Amino acid sequence: MKMNTIAAIATAMSSSGIGIVRISGEESFQIIDKIFKAKGSGNKKLSTEPSHTIHYGYIYDGDEMVDEVLVMIMRGPKSFTAEDTIEIDCHGGVLVTKRILETVLKHGARPAEPGEFTKRAFLNGRVDLTQAEAVIDVINAKNQYALKSSVSQLEGSVSRRIKDMREKIIYHIALIESALDDPEHISLEGYGDTLLETLSPLKDEIQSLIRSADNGRVLSEGIETVILGKPNAGKSSLLNVLVGEERAIVTDIAGTTRDTLREQIRLEELSLNIIDTAGIRETEDLVEKIGVEKARSAAEGADLIIYVVDGSRDLDENDHEIIDFIQDKKALVLLNKTDLDPVVTKERLESLTNHPVILISAKERTGIKDLEEEITSMFYEGKLDFNDQVYITNVRHKNALAEALKSLSMVEQSVRNEMPEDFYSIDLMDAYEQLGTILGESVEDDLVNEIFKKFCMGK
Amino acid sequence: MKMNTIAAIATAMSSSGIGIVRISGEESFQIIDKIFKAKGSGNKKLSTEPSHTIHYGYIYDGDEMVDEVLVMIMRGPKSFTAEDTIEIDCHGGVLVTKRILETVLKHGARPAEPGEFTKRAFLNGRVDLTQAEAVIDVINAKNQYALKSSVSQLEGSVSRRIKDMREKIIYHIALIESALDDPEHISLEGYGDTLLETLSPLKDEIQSLIRSADNGRVLSEGIETVILGKPNAGKSSLLNVLVGEERAIVTDIAGTTRDTLREQIRLEELSLNIIDTAGIRETEDLVEKIGVEKARSAAEGADLIIYVVDGSRDLDENDHEIIDFIQDKKALVLLNKTDLDPVVTKERLESLTNHPVILISAKERTGIKDLEEEITSMFYEGKLDFNDQVYITNVRHKNALAEALKSLSMVEQSVRNEMPEDFYSIDLMDAYEQLGTILGESVEDDLVNEIFKKFCMGK
Repeated sequence: MKMNTIAAIATAMSSSGIGIVRISGEESFQIIDKIFKAKGSGNKKLSTEPSHTIHYGYIYDGDEMVDEVLVMIMRGPKSFTAEDTIEIDCHGGVLVTKRILETVLKHGARPAEPGEFTKRAFLNGRVDLTQAEAVIDVINAKNQYALKSSVSQLEGSVSRRIKDMREKIIYHIALIESALDDPEHISLEGYGDTLLETLSPLKDEIQSLIRSADNGRVLSEGIETVILGKPNAGKSSLLNVLVGEERAIVTDIAGTTRDTLREQIRLEELSLNIIDTAGIRETEDLVEKIGVEKARSAAEGADLIIYVVDGSRDLDENDHEIIDFIQDKKALVLLNKTDLDPVVTKERLESLTNHPVILISAKERTGIKDLEEEITSMFYEGKLDFNDQVYITNVRHKNALAEALKSLSMVEQSVRNEMPEDFYSIDLMDAYEQLGTILGESVEDDLVNEIFKKFCMGK
Repeated sequence: MKMNTIAAIATAMSSSGIGIVRISGEESFQIIDKIFKAKGSGNKKLSTEPSHTIHYGYIYDGDEMVDEVLVMIMRGPKSFTAEDTIEIDCHGGVLVTKRILETVLKHGARPAEPGEFTKRAFLNGRVDLTQAEAVIDVINAKNQYALKSSVSQLEGSVSRRIKDMREKIIYHIALIESALDDPEHISLEGYGDTLLETLSPLKDEIQSLIRSADNGRVLSEGIETVILGKPNAGKSSLLNVLVGEERAIVTDIAGTTRDTLREQIRLEELSLNIIDTAGIRETEDLVEKIGVEKARSAAEGADLIIYVVDGSRDLDENDHEIIDFIQDKKALVLLNKTDLDPVVTKERLESLTNHPVILISAKERTGIKDLEEEITSMFYEGKLDFNDQVYITNVRHKNALAEALKSLSMVEQSVRNEMPEDFYSIDLMDAYEQLGTILGESVEDDLVNEIFKKFCMGK
């Protein structure tokens, strides 16, 4: 197993104050001893320095001084990967950071694959799979809720819930297996009822976690939103106001959404993904005619429809068609142009639709805060409190929970049908294994590789 | 002086493995104690931990866990700023890094101004002005030479040269001043000749540093290059081959030059700035007609002209016009299309021009390495050796050196004209001050110290 020490640039590749090259593996110290010279005391070897200390000096590639650096040394298992780990903090230029990496590679490391540092943390047992997945979620978090949720998962909140449930299940598996092995000493008399009593809250818990997954997706990826309204109702102004707010807050990540076909808007704590293709403009005509497939499916696939009403003109046929269309969907009504003389009232719209109605003036930028609060409460029934609640944000977790739920229902069925007890334990074991895949316990290697491929380099 | 503790994000603002928030100033430890909780041992206070150690735990904003982090603590004066400094290594997401910074600011720091950490390092005397300037040069270095030069400057190579020169000058100022104060004990008999002997090598040294500044600019900013040649000589293919090489090497910084009007090409160790506006395409016709102002000035302002010859067709009038045009300029000739039957020979081109001739095939991508080597030797007369030589890459330094040189010439003049000795010391002082501005040293203090230290002891 030569070249098992990995290295990568862990910071983003554009000019900044500091760049980091990270090294992990058995040979980390051999490598750093070859390329680091401490300032002043030229003979200091980092391999003999205590763990979790910081050292100032220079990186040399042979005789060539590459940069002035700080080197952080962390010995395994108390490191990110649980292996010997070294971080070289250099100046944050693209070229200089690359030259440091090159120097490290030349002296015995190999380039890390994307996500390989986190993969090692998992394979070495420092984190479980939910925590490893949370690393990438924290990095990609685009809003407060997503960040809170993923930090909570990173810290182990999902794992703890899953582990608690697995403990209850394994207890019953063990009990049944023991009783079957040793029927003289352990009786399963009346055990079916006990088991049903255990299963019911377990199933409730799993169901509640599965339900949280839809909120979780909305949290982390944003709310798929379509804006409807007849021509000149103020849809574009609304979009401009919302986008303007967003731009003001997060100018520096604007580039990240530039290439997509949607406009991502971050309100204070929520993201809206407004479908902003040519489609949305076509939607105007299409919705007026209704029945046109494309507009319908965009609106029907959405998490939220925002219906914009021009309060200064009376409702017309187009409005009534839209009102019909959104009747049974998750929608809210914006009564726009409150700066003009009102023709349509809030009360009238409330009586026509079963949706919340909010007064705004896109022109004067009032009511935006109300809009955000309304959306928050529509999706989360009040503010989220991450100290109390665990959100599932990962489709893989949701599917495993659904499978576990199915298996537990089979156990209930078997109990009700008075099947032999070994039937119970087979399905209990299935549930146990399904929950185990969430933590990454006894998961096939493929699954592990699949998960870590999504990571960025240097993590 | 409240809020004198500064904080900023030190890494680039796009998703990556690690983000860093840096804090510097008196209150650094008070702030980190309020927001950091060590993993496990919740009561550990970083303010009581030893300097240059690394700590694992979480950043909290009140009750909200913001992220899992590593915190590096470095007490002044042994830190980048020479003040108490803390670096928080968090996950490299844009939002999470901003939330960490927000939390730090909320608890008593103020946002750092651009460059303020380095400014503090200078104001606190940890680095001089050339070293502070080198920090940004290292970060912006686009090629090996620029990097080597700036790292060498960072390490103090420029400072040492300047300090050595200043020491020689101050010695003579002190001597003259002392003699004028105390003519009975110190004689200036024949002193003019001694001074001339000192000034001559000093002036040579300054002149050589000034000459290095042109190379220095080329080093750090790239060689302004115009490609000339008649239509279909292969200019575009050449550009594509060069750009292709560059893309392959530095794809991830391609975006940085996207907005400029020039194509920046990095060969192995050099950068070429190829003027790639609409102008360069016009240049084709313009050069054929010569005398057209725009093309002339582009080529005349360039550091280098690359003249591309189609070796498979005989030279025509256009070629001869170009050959005339480049006769007295820094240029090299590329004999292209060596993959086809040769009509024009290397010997013929060498006899027609006084420039180096290199054989290439843009199509087959041969000869590029020779091109680079030729350019290197044209600009630097062989490979640079940064262990021996100091390069001035900074216009400010160059100007100060030119002023110092002027003052030293005035001293020579005064000696030759047998002016009174206090004339010498005025101009010597000017030179001393000019050199001091390179280091960012104000003169008064050390002049006083120097004079009394060396000459006036016991007087």
